[in-house]
Amino acid sequence: MASQNADHADRLESSLSLSEVRRRDIAEARQNPAQTLRPTVPALEALLHELIPVLDHGFVRVIDYMGDDSAVVQAARVSYGRGTKKVSEDRGLIRYLMRHRHTTPFEMCAIKLHVKLPIFIARQWIRHRMASVNEISARYSILDNEFYLPSAGQLAAQSTDNRQGRGTVLEGEEAARVLEILREDALRTYRDYEFMLNEGETRDPARQGLARELARINLTLNTYTQWYWKADLHNLLHFLSLRADSHAQYEIRAYAEAILKIVAAWTPLTHEAFIDYRLGAVTLSKTAIGLVARMIRGEKITQTSSGLGEREWREFTAALGLEDL
Amino acid sequence: MASQNADHADRLESSLSLSEVRRRDIAEARQNPAQTLRPTVPALEALLHELIPVLDHGFVRVIDYMGDDSAVVQAARVSYGRGTKKVSEDRGLIRYLMRHRHTTPFEMCAIKLHVKLPIFIARQWIRHRMASVNEISARYSILDNEFYLPSAGQLAAQSTDNRQGRGTVLEGEEAARVLEILREDALRTYRDYEFMLNEGETRDPARQGLARELARINLTLNTYTQWYWKADLHNLLHFLSLRADSHAQYEIRAYAEAILKIVAAWTPLTHEAFIDYRLGAVTLSKTAIGLVARMIRGEKITQTSSGLGEREWREFTAALGLEDL
Amino acid sequence: MASQNADHADRLESSLSLSEVRRRDIAEARQNPAQTLRPTVPALEALLHELIPVLDHGFVRVIDYMGDDSAVVQAARVSYGRGTKKVSEDRGLIRYLMRHRHTTPFEMCAIKLHVKLPIFIARQWIRHRMASVNEISARYSILDNEFYLPSAGQLAAQSTDNRQGRGTVLEGEEAARVLEILREDALRTYRDYEFMLNEGETRDPARQGLARELARINLTLNTYTQWYWKADLHNLLHFLSLRADSHAQYEIRAYAEAILKIVAAWTPLTHEAFIDYRLGAVTLSKTAIGLVARMIRGEKITQTSSGLGEREWREFTAALGLEDL
Amino acid sequence: MASQNADHADRLESSLSLSEVRRRDIAEARQNPAQTLRPTVPALEALLHELIPVLDHGFVRVIDYMGDDSAVVQAARVSYGRGTKKVSEDRGLIRYLMRHRHTTPFEMCAIKLHVKLPIFIARQWIRHRMASVNEISARYSILDNEFYLPSAGQLAAQSTDNRQGRGTVLEGEEAARVLEILREDALRTYRDYEFMLNEGETRDPARQGLARELARINLTLNTYTQWYWKADLHNLLHFLSLRADSHAQYEIRAYAEAILKIVAAWTPLTHEAFIDYRLGAVTLSKTAIGLVARMIRGEKITQTSSGLGEREWREFTAALGLEDL
Repeated sequence: MASQNADHADRLESSLSLSEVRRRDIAEARQNPAQTLRPTVPALEALLHELIPVLDHGFVRVIDYMGDDSAVVQAARVSYGRGTKKVSEDRGLIRYLMRHRHTTPFEMCAIKLHVKLPIFIARQWIRHRMASVNEISARYSILDNEFYLPSAGQLAAQSTDNRQGRGTVLEGEEAARVLEILREDALRTYRDYEFMLNEGETRDPARQGLARELARINLTLNTYTQWYWKADLHNLLHFLSLRADSHAQYEIRAYAEAILKIVAAWTPLTHEAFIDYRLGAVTLSKTAIGLVARMIRGEKITQTSSGLGEREWREFTAALGLEDL
Repeated sequence: MASQNADHADRLESSLSLSEVRRRDIAEARQNPAQTLRPTVPALEALLHELIPVLDHGFVRVIDYMGDDSAVVQAARVSYGRGTKKVSEDRGLIRYLMRHRHTTPFEMCAIKLHVKLPIFIARQWIRHRMASVNEISARYSILDNEFYLPSAGQLAAQSTDNRQGRGTVLEGEEAARVLEILREDALRTYRDYEFMLNEGETRDPARQGLARELARINLTLNTYTQWYWKADLHNLLHFLSLRADSHAQYEIRAYAEAILKIVAAWTPLTHEAFIDYRLGAVTLSKTAIGLVARMIRGEKITQTSSGLGEREWREFTAALGLEDL
Repeated sequence: MASQNADHADRLESSLSLSEVRRRDIAEARQNPAQTLRPTVPALEALLHELIPVLDHGFVRVIDYMGDDSAVVQAARVSYGRGTKKVSEDRGLIRYLMRHRHTTPFEMCAIKLHVKLPIFIARQWIRHRMASVNEISARYSILDNEFYLPSAGQLAAQSTDNRQGRGTVLEGEEAARVLEILREDALRTYRDYEFMLNEGETRDPARQGLARELARINLTLNTYTQWYWKADLHNLLHFLSLRADSHAQYEIRAYAEAILKIVAAWTPLTHEAFIDYRLGAVTLSKTAIGLVARMIRGEKITQTSSGLGEREWREFTAALGLEDL
Repeated sequence: MASQNADHADRLESSLSLSEVRRRDIAEARQNPAQTLRPTVPALEALLHELIPVLDHGFVRVIDYMGDDSAVVQAARVSYGRGTKKVSEDRGLIRYLMRHRHTTPFEMCAIKLHVKLPIFIARQWIRHRMASVNEISARYSILDNEFYLPSAGQLAAQSTDNRQGRGTVLEGEEAARVLEILREDALRTYRDYEFMLNEGETRDPARQGLARELARINLTLNTYTQWYWKADLHNLLHFLSLRADSHAQYEIRAYAEAILKIVAAWTPLTHEAFIDYRLGAVTLSKTAIGLVARMIRGEKITQTSSGLGEREWREFTAALGLEDL
C-alpha cells in the first residue's frame, strides 16, 4: 500500500516534471551562476538548460559542456607543437585538422544534452556507440502519454525509386486516414498500457496491475522517451555528418539540425570547418578524380566513356552539379 | 510499377525466409564443410547455424566464431610468458585470468550470432556498446507480423517492494484480460501498419502507401526484429554477467541463458571459470570484509553493530546465505 | 635556413615551456575567472591548472572538468526516477550505484589532465582505450633531456617468488652501479640523439641532421613525454582500480594516487564509495562464499578441506586477513 | 635458486621461440587441418601462421580470421534486405557500402595477427583503440637483443619544409656515423640491461639483479616487441587508410603494406573497393567542389581567384594532378 502511494507520488512528480517542475528546474539552474577557471563560452551559456523544441513534443537542451575552439587548438599544439597563437591562426589550424582528419584534438571537447525523442528515433540514435547515455527506464517509471505524429508536410508516400526513401506527400483522404490511424492506435495502446498497469481512471483496487517492465511492451514506437546523452566533439560531428545528411530520416535530421546550431554557438570555428570540409564535402574515388582531371583539361566524357556504372555516374555528376553535361 | 513488383517479391522472400528459405539456408550452410588450419571446436560446429528457440518466436543461432580456450591461453602466454602447455595448466591459467580480471586474453575470441528478439529486448541489449550489430531495417523492409506474448507463468504483477521487479503471477480474469489486450493491440497495430503501407489484403491501387520509415512507428514494442550481433568473448561474458543475473528482466535472461549454453560448448574452461568467479561470485566491500573476518573469529554481529544500512545488511546476509543469523 | 631558425625558436620555446613559460601560462590561466551556469566544484577549481608533482620530473595537472557528484545523481534519476533530493540521499544513491555496478551515470562526468610521464609508464597507461589522448609528437618536436631515475628506496631487486614483482631494495655497490648505468645511458643516448639531429653544442652547418622521427628511436624508455588525457569518471575509476592497486608497478601507482586525490576533491561522495566498494573490496568466488558461510557457522576449514588450490587459498585468507587461522 | 633456474629455462625457451621453437610451432600449426562449417578462405589459409617479414627483424603473421567478403554481404542484406545473390552483385554491393561509408557490415569480419615490431612503431599503432592487444610484458619476460636499424635507403634527413617529414637520404660520413651511433647505443643499453638484471655472461651470484620492470627502462625505442593484435575489418581498413598513407612514417607503412596484401588474399572484393574509394580517393571541400565544377565548365582559375589559401590550393591541384595548370 505504502509503495503504491509512493508510486502515485512518483507518477505525479513525473507528469509535472515535463511542465511546471521542469520549467522551475530550468529557471533555478539558470539563476545560480558560479565562478570558474575553465574555458567558458558565453554564446553557449546563453542557451544552457533552455529547451530547444524539435518535432511535435521533443526537445534538445544543453546540460553541460567542456572546452571550446581553443581547447581543440591547445590539444593539437601539444601533439604538433605549432607555434603562434593568434585567432586567425587558430582558425587555420582547426581547418587544417578538419581537412586532414586529425580527429583526436576534437575529442578534447564534450557536451551533455537532455533529449526528448520518439523511441523509433532513439533506436537509430543509439547506434552511435561512442557516447554515454542514461535513458528513462520504463521498468521503473511510467511513461507519459506523448507520441509523435508527422505534420501534414511530412506525411510522405514510399519512394518508388529508393527503397529507404520518401516520395511525394500524401494528400486528401489517404493522408487524413493515416493520421487518424496513427493517433488512434497510439491513444488506444496507451490507454491499455494504463489499464494493464492498473493506473489512471480505470484503476481498480481489486486488481494487482501488470509489472511495468511488461506493460510497456504494448506501447507503439512513436512514444516519446528521454535521455541524457554525452559525446565528445569528434563523435558528435561524426553523428552530425550522418544524421544531418539528406539520406537520414527526416525526424532524426530535425534533431541533428538543432544540435548543429548548438555547435555553431559553442565552437564556431569548428562548426565552419565542419560545414566546409565534412558536411558539404564530397569524396571522389580514384577513378572519379581521374575523370575530373580529364574534364578540366577539356575532354568530353559520358557515362559510357567514364567507366562508371549508371548509378555511380549519376552520383558523380550530381555531386559536381553537372547533371546537364 | 516495376519497383512495386520488386517490393512484392522482396516481401515474399522475406516471409519465406523465416520458414522454408531459412530452413533451406541452414541445411545448405551445414552441408559444405571446408578444411581449415584455424582453431576449431567440434562441440560448437555441431551447433553452427542451428536455431536455438528462445521465448515464443525468438531464436539465437551461431553464424561464425573465432578462437577457443587455447586461444585465450595462447594470448595470455604472449603477455605473461608462462611456460608449460598441459591441459590441466590451461585450466589453471584461465581460472587465474578470470579471478584477477585479466580480461584482454578473452578478447582474442569472438562469436557472431543471428538473433530474433522483441524490440523492447533489443533496446536493452544494444546498450552493450562493445559489439557489432546489423539489424533488419524497417526503413527498407516490411517487418513480419510476429510479436511477443508472455506465457501464463511470466505474466507477473508489479512487485510491491521493488520498483523494477516482478511480483506474483497474475491469475484468473486479470491475466486473461491482459493477454487479450496485448494480442489485440499487436494485431490491430500490425493490420494498420499494413494498411498504411498499402500492402496485404486491403491493398488498393488508388492509394500511394505511406513510407515504410513512417508506417513502422505504429508497431508495438513487442514486435520481433532480427540482427547479426558479434562480440568478443570478454564483452560477451560482461553481457552475460549482467543479463544472466537475477536482476535482469526475464525476457533478456532467456536469451542470456541460451548464450551461456553456447559458451559452455565453445569454451568450456572459460565457461566454468566464469560461473565460479563471476556469475556466482560476490563482491564484498571493505567494510563487509571486515565484518566477515570478525564473524569468522566468532564475534556475533547484528545490523545495528555492523555499521551497514538496512538494505546493505540485507544484501550482505543474503549474499552469504546467512539470513537466519 | 628559415625553417631551421623556426626550429630553433620552437626548441627555445619548448625548453622554456617547462619552466618560465609554463609557470606564466598557469598564472595566466588562473587569473581569468569567468561566470558559468555549469556545475562547478570549488575544491577542484582551487587545483585547476596547478602542477601536482609525481616521480622525479613528472606531474599531473587538471585542465578542465565536467560535472560533479550531483551530475551522477541527476543522470541516475533520469534512468531510475528516484525521488528525493537531499544530500544524504545523494550519498546513498551514489553508494547504491557503485555497489551494484550501475556504471553509466558515472560516465556523465569527465576530466581532462595534462600529464608528464616516462614513456614506459605511458605504454602501460595507453592500454586504457576508453579515453582521449593528445601526446607530444617526437616526429614534430624535439624532446627534452629529462628521464626518470628511481629513487634509492625504489631500486628493487627482482622478486624471487613473483615473476612480475619487486623484491627487496638493492643496496650498496649494486645499487650505486645500477643508478650510474641508468643515468649514463640516458645521458649518452640523449647526447647522441641531439648529435644525430645536428642540434645543440655539436651542431655543424655541414651536416643535414637525421629526421626527427628517426633520431628519437635512440632514446631510452625512461625519457619523459607529455600528453593531454581526457576520460569520463567511470573509466577513470576503472583505470584507478587497476593502477592504484598493489599489483600495479610502483611508478604508475604514483600517478594513480595523485589522481585519486583529485577525484576526492572533485567528487567526494563518489570517491568515498569507490574506496569502500571497489578499491578496498574483495570479490569472492562461488566456492569461497560457501567457505565463508561455513566458517562463520563455526566450521574449521584448512586449505586441504577447502577445495581451493594452494595459491587461491593463500589469496583467500590474505583477502580476509585470516592468514593466522 | 629454484626460481632463478626457472627464469633461466624461460629465458632459454624465449630465445629459442624466435627461431627453432617458432619454426616448429608454425609447422605444427600448419599440419593439423580440421573440418569446419564456417566461411573459409583458401587464399588466406595458405598464408595462415606463416611469417611475413617486415623491416630488419619484424614480421606479421595471421593467427586466425573470421568471415570473408560474403559475410560482409550477408550482414548488409540483413540490414538492407537486398535481394539477389550472384557474385557480380556481391561486388556491386560491397562497392556501394564502401562508397557510402556503410561501415557496420565490415565489422562482421575479424582477423588476428601476431606482429613483431619496434617499440616506437608499437606506440603509433596502439593509438588505434578499436582493437584487442596482448603484448609481451617486459615486467614478466626478458626481451631479446633485437633492435631496428634503418636501411641505408631509409636514413633520411629532416625535411626542411615539413616539420614531420623526411628529406633527402643522408650519405657518406654522416650516414655512417648515424648508423654506428644507433647500433652502438642499442648494444650498450641492452648489455647494461642484462647486467642490471644480473643475467648473461656477467652474471654474478653475489648480486641480486634489478627487477625486470625497472631494468627495461634502459632499453631504446628501437627495441623489438611482439603482440597479438585483433581487429575487425572496418577498423583494420581505417588503420590502413591512415598507416598505408604517404604521410605515415615509413616504418609503420611497411607493416600496413604487408597487411594490405593479407586483406587482398582474405577479402579481395573489399580490398578492391577500399583501394578505389578510400586509399586512392580524395575528399574535396564544398569550396573545392565549386571550383572543380567551374573549371570543368571552362573557367580559368588561379590560387588568387580560387579563394583557397596557398597551402590548400597546393593540396587541391596536387590531388587532381593539375600542378601544371
